[in-house]
Amino acid sequence: MELIKVAATSRSTAVAGAIAGVMREKGQVDVQAIGAGAVNQAIKAVCIARVYLEEDGIDIVCVPMFVEVQIGDQERTAVRLCVQRRWTDVEIS
Amino acid sequence: MELIKVAATSRSTAVAGAIAGVMREKGQVDVQAIGAGAVNQAIKAVCIARVYLEEDGIDIVCVPMFVEVQIGDQERTAVRLCVQRRWTDVEIS
Repeated sequence: MELIKVAATSRSTAVAGAIAGVMREKGQVDVQAIGAGAVNQAIKAVCIARVYLEEDGIDIVCVPMFVEVQIGDQERTAVRLCVQRRWTDVEIS
Repeated sequence: MELIKVAATSRSTAVAGAIAGVMREKGQVDVQAIGAGAVNQAIKAVCIARVYLEEDGIDIVCVPMFVEVQIGDQERTAVRLCVQRRWTDVEIS
């Protein structure tokens, strides 16, 4: 799984481009952010990527969750946004 | 559609409880936030609500988008998180 790490200083349009690129190629991507500024940039990037991908007929959703990550010798709680195609997991039996 | 407005000072667990309540009853809810602090609380609330609702067998996703809102005489850009059951819209013809 590709992981895009977002900082408070990341440009949301640049992150959106990265999300859209991975979504087109792999169909899913995880976006990770620590702290309010970074989480804000990450979610804005998903908003923008959704518009980019709509043009390709790709409908995305995101599943937000907390994950514990090790930064140096510290454990921090990150927000991970699992970006997926809306219907990726549909199975009709 | 129910709309939950989140501020930077909102408690994410309280917002999560509200999201979970509306999701159980109506199956979808919009969560709206303006500014990095509020967006962070909103997304954290969705993370927590996801855990609450998993216990009920309800799998949620969120679709983030920008919306223009009028605050007094100013137009502001808000982030709206459309929280939905994962498969709400599935139609099999």
